[in-house]
Amino acid sequence: MKTEVAIVGASGYGSRELIRILLGHPGASIALATSRSDEAPSVAEMHPSLRGRINLRSEPFNADRVASAASVAFLGLPHTASLAVTPALRARGVRVIDLSADYRLKSAATYAQWYGHAHTDPAGLLEAVYGLPEIARGSIPPANLIANPGCYTSTAILALAPLVVLDRIERSGIIVDAYSGISGAGRSPKPNLHFPEANENLVAYGVGNHRHTPEIDQVLTDLGRADGPNRPPVEVIFTPHLAPIDRGIHASIYAEPLRDENESDLLDLYRTFYAQSPFVRIVDHPPGTKDSAHTNFIDITVKVVRGRVVILACLDNLIKGASGVAVQNFNLMHGWPETTALA
Amino acid sequence: MKTEVAIVGASGYGSRELIRILLGHPGASIALATSRSDEAPSVAEMHPSLRGRINLRSEPFNADRVASAASVAFLGLPHTASLAVTPALRARGVRVIDLSADYRLKSAATYAQWYGHAHTDPAGLLEAVYGLPEIARGSIPPANLIANPGCYTSTAILALAPLVVLDRIERSGIIVDAYSGISGAGRSPKPNLHFPEANENLVAYGVGNHRHTPEIDQVLTDLGRADGPNRPPVEVIFTPHLAPIDRGIHASIYAEPLRDENESDLLDLYRTFYAQSPFVRIVDHPPGTKDSAHTNFIDITVKVVRGRVVILACLDNLIKGASGVAVQNFNLMHGWPETTALA
Amino acid sequence: MKTEVAIVGASGYGSRELIRILLGHPGASIALATSRSDEAPSVAEMHPSLRGRINLRSEPFNADRVASAASVAFLGLPHTASLAVTPALRARGVRVIDLSADYRLKSAATYAQWYGHAHTDPAGLLEAVYGLPEIARGSIPPANLIANPGCYTSTAILALAPLVVLDRIERSGIIVDAYSGISGAGRSPKPNLHFPEANENLVAYGVGNHRHTPEIDQVLTDLGRADGPNRPPVEVIFTPHLAPIDRGIHASIYAEPLRDENESDLLDLYRTFYAQSPFVRIVDHPPGTKDSAHTNFIDITVKVVRGRVVILACLDNLIKGASGVAVQNFNLMHGWPETTALA
Amino acid sequence: MKTEVAIVGASGYGSRELIRILLGHPGASIALATSRSDEAPSVAEMHPSLRGRINLRSEPFNADRVASAASVAFLGLPHTASLAVTPALRARGVRVIDLSADYRLKSAATYAQWYGHAHTDPAGLLEAVYGLPEIARGSIPPANLIANPGCYTSTAILALAPLVVLDRIERSGIIVDAYSGISGAGRSPKPNLHFPEANENLVAYGVGNHRHTPEIDQVLTDLGRADGPNRPPVEVIFTPHLAPIDRGIHASIYAEPLRDENESDLLDLYRTFYAQSPFVRIVDHPPGTKDSAHTNFIDITVKVVRGRVVILACLDNLIKGASGVAVQNFNLMHGWPETTALA
Repeated sequence: MKTEVAIVGASGYGSRELIRILLGHPGASIALATSRSDEAPSVAEMHPSLRGRINLRSEPFNADRVASAASVAFLGLPHTASLAVTPALRARGVRVIDLSADYRLKSAATYAQWYGHAHTDPAGLLEAVYGLPEIARGSIPPANLIANPGCYTSTAILALAPLVVLDRIERSGIIVDAYSGISGAGRSPKPNLHFPEANENLVAYGVGNHRHTPEIDQVLTDLGRADGPNRPPVEVIFTPHLAPIDRGIHASIYAEPLRDENESDLLDLYRTFYAQSPFVRIVDHPPGTKDSAHTNFIDITVKVVRGRVVILACLDNLIKGASGVAVQNFNLMHGWPETTALA
Repeated sequence: MKTEVAIVGASGYGSRELIRILLGHPGASIALATSRSDEAPSVAEMHPSLRGRINLRSEPFNADRVASAASVAFLGLPHTASLAVTPALRARGVRVIDLSADYRLKSAATYAQWYGHAHTDPAGLLEAVYGLPEIARGSIPPANLIANPGCYTSTAILALAPLVVLDRIERSGIIVDAYSGISGAGRSPKPNLHFPEANENLVAYGVGNHRHTPEIDQVLTDLGRADGPNRPPVEVIFTPHLAPIDRGIHASIYAEPLRDENESDLLDLYRTFYAQSPFVRIVDHPPGTKDSAHTNFIDITVKVVRGRVVILACLDNLIKGASGVAVQNFNLMHGWPETTALA
Repeated sequence: MKTEVAIVGASGYGSRELIRILLGHPGASIALATSRSDEAPSVAEMHPSLRGRINLRSEPFNADRVASAASVAFLGLPHTASLAVTPALRARGVRVIDLSADYRLKSAATYAQWYGHAHTDPAGLLEAVYGLPEIARGSIPPANLIANPGCYTSTAILALAPLVVLDRIERSGIIVDAYSGISGAGRSPKPNLHFPEANENLVAYGVGNHRHTPEIDQVLTDLGRADGPNRPPVEVIFTPHLAPIDRGIHASIYAEPLRDENESDLLDLYRTFYAQSPFVRIVDHPPGTKDSAHTNFIDITVKVVRGRVVILACLDNLIKGASGVAVQNFNLMHGWPETTALA
Repeated sequence: MKTEVAIVGASGYGSRELIRILLGHPGASIALATSRSDEAPSVAEMHPSLRGRINLRSEPFNADRVASAASVAFLGLPHTASLAVTPALRARGVRVIDLSADYRLKSAATYAQWYGHAHTDPAGLLEAVYGLPEIARGSIPPANLIANPGCYTSTAILALAPLVVLDRIERSGIIVDAYSGISGAGRSPKPNLHFPEANENLVAYGVGNHRHTPEIDQVLTDLGRADGPNRPPVEVIFTPHLAPIDRGIHASIYAEPLRDENESDLLDLYRTFYAQSPFVRIVDHPPGTKDSAHTNFIDITVKVVRGRVVILACLDNLIKGASGVAVQNFNLMHGWPETTALA
């Protein structure tokens, strides 16, 4: 028997990829999709690439309708909009996988500070599980509210987790210099995303104040305190940039090792750390974003340059950075093999 | 002594290129720029590539201000907006080079039909000279109101003029299949011009109803009637497309010859026809848009395939298709060599 | 029980897509891959995107090895190379799906003329079935040698088949103006495919002499003679171009109707013609290459402009134009639903 | 009277831009061009964008021919090839502006170590002046042998010079994370520069061993020792990447300040430092590569993030990173205003 799922907020790029993946999932059936009333009513009209693959009209959000049709809801909403619907869905027994940022930060105060909006569901915040299976595989199966991680965030966390968990690097002064494909900025036209502006252009934005910063800090700090709650927090210096590609994130990360390191040992360390993670590929050369585009893989390599550790990591922001990890979480929640519909 | 010029509507891509060209013109001085009040007040802020090259604040349009500062105004306005300012400028003795479509069609009725707006300056329409020097070099020097041609239009007209003037092809059923870089669609963000939609995409638009159709028909019909006013009109079947490049138009044009033709004779015919036109390059291989990008050249070649004439032509839509030909016209109006500031 | 398949010539882009699709096919198992000895020995090393998904080393071609391991061989070889291996595979009872051009043209003389190489397997030529299911679904199941169609070819044939079969257009003077993504030119670096040359460029090539011309002519001529062997042949004027996208073909096709036509009737006619073809999507707006990229669909619309029929069609050259249709053929040959692993 | 110049090695992208700039230079006349005998003999054939602008055939290199035709030679040769011709040109009294790396490193041993080739002209090395006017304006006018700087190098040096000269940052552990457009990799087709590989891809290369590393170190170390020869050397951790754009370098640079810094003071400091440098634009927002593409400007901004100084800098690798600075040097050598032909 298939699990009926709802796509709440079906019109974005992440939801398009999610629907495409779920259409090939043997254990999921898309029962319902919602979108704002000013958007195209048919999912295939919203997403021309899905024409001929799905015959479903979207409807305005209604918690009762979702609860009667589906047992799991994927939320593809902008931040704060997830806050507005999650409590109603949870009250009706729907398990929620939220792709927005609304349940990622544990502290409502930090959320308010970075998102400029009070957090209106502190109970949900307590309940939410951060859905990055590679570092929290065990906590996902029973979860009823998953905070699906951000795209830059997943890249940085997976690239740094082994060194933080195993306490091999300084926790401050870590530099995360990252470039994203432009689908990461969403589907709404904006001047800086207009083709003649974005094409042939590389440009930084949100320098020092991008909202993925506290998320990276929080998750890595927690990972780094597994064996000692008084260990110092992780603080990254994060510079996001836009690059003229559709999809993909490339992060170049610089950290100060606590002792002399060499590349071969570090690659072994990463391979061991991720031995049970089918979507992490440790490679021995610099990965390109194209290697993992349209897949759920993250590619990572590690170098040592003048005594500094340099980690290079790539993933597809719409898949491993959003919809793909959401399906990984869905699989774990339902006892399916983690790779179902994803490889 | 330099000619003082005004840029009316300075914020678009065509105006940016125009300003850049004029900054290198020994006989022109940019005295004034106008833009809507909601746009950046400094020309360098509107166009970051011009930073450090021009120190001019733009102002809202005022005909008296323009007339007191400049003897020539380049209008980089959307269609219908040129109509609103040209009579006032002409009344104050300012010579106008209008880059919009407002004075290109000789018939006010045709204008109303294709642009959905009555033509409010029929006197101007009578006075306006179509500013494509390669086919009307003699009429430009004395002109006080120049209708600067469209980008697709220039490509199609220059590619077909020799065959129409010399009566070598059928005048109906000419197919103009053309692709434009996305700067041709203007600077306002739109869903289909959003980078993740336009990138990696080729798509037709305005099939059979693009507004450059009557302009191509009109100019080629006139050219074809030079020696006989009862000759049939030219009618093109025009399909524009968008391609993911910043700038450039590629037109592939198919015409039925009136007698057997061969490529070598046709290339000679084109070379002779354009012998006095420094910006037309007749080449013996398929030209790429990149060959003429960032230049005022149009590249043209001619092939014969299964008895059909195939003409391939490329130009930069922002330069030879807009700002560059405007400066050609400016040069001719002021007795400067046609190539001044352009090659 | 799964069908064991071999990938002969595994290093190209088409083979990469084929392997990716077959990895998700419930009825196929990739038993063997071959490549030239100077290429990377591991399939995942050849194709970094496949890392972690396939663990297979390629080997030099050996007909006995292929025959002992597999019952079907997909040939991803350059033309003439397929000729060199097909007879040996057929002699050993291996069913062949050839993605090269070697068995597409029925006439050995035409092959020699366009490919500059004598056809050394005339018996194979007689036996080969042209593998475009939408027009020859019935002949594929029993076939032992499939000539998989070319990418431009499939686009043009599927776009024109309804009008040719139903005798609605003139058969000569059909113009096929088409643009391809650069993966269509193969994986070998060449000066015109070097990024700084190909990027931001649109350029025609092979004007009037591209090798897909006789293939389009042949198949459409045959389709047009179903009801009368003396009907005139189809002759297309075909102009291919390169556009700076990874994948996708856009064809704009112009034909002279035999009677007055209107768009709505033509769209109905196309929908009826392709009612049983799950991968043909008849759309009522100009399709973009991006709509069908990474899918096995072809999108087609029809317009009437000044009495001329204009057909616009898009497909992914590596999938519907190569690997995807190969899997459609594989499915039909083995009694699987045609859409298996493809939608 | 114009200075006659020779372009030695005319076929590369940098030489194309150089020729284009010199064609607009009132004080220069291109008297001669050389290229390898297997390259197109006409400069316009090598560079289709120059068709109609230059009528010059290239010839194989001959020092006597160059010396009889020109007083200045620009060398657009690969490294080691400049070494082979410079002594002969200098012996004949030709002033040389070398765009290769052959005379940039002061130490022949360092050259041998990084370029794998003994330096065969140590006398030339002693004589050569590093041609970055913004930091060495005074030494260029009398120079007879200019080592034109590398593209990444100029970006990093100009971005860091104020902080190094004024001793505001730690000299080790400086991170230079930089992306280049693909023209920076030259005109020869290579697998990783093949359009379908490079497009939609971001990828690091030469991590920790790119040859611009010792050049950046050397020049910044010297700058940092102006007031004290025993000051520690500058050592950068340099990671170059390729991005799918034609031209442009984006560098994101991270340095540890020696005291608390704030952005506004740092911007003032940069503005003061470069007050006499017309091609350095200090901007208060993150610059995009597109802002300086096709210009001789470098755009720089400075941020402070979590106590670390972050410098963002962009330039056009072919112009400010190669041909444009070569013309700046040419201007200074001949007493022309530094901006002649460049702004």
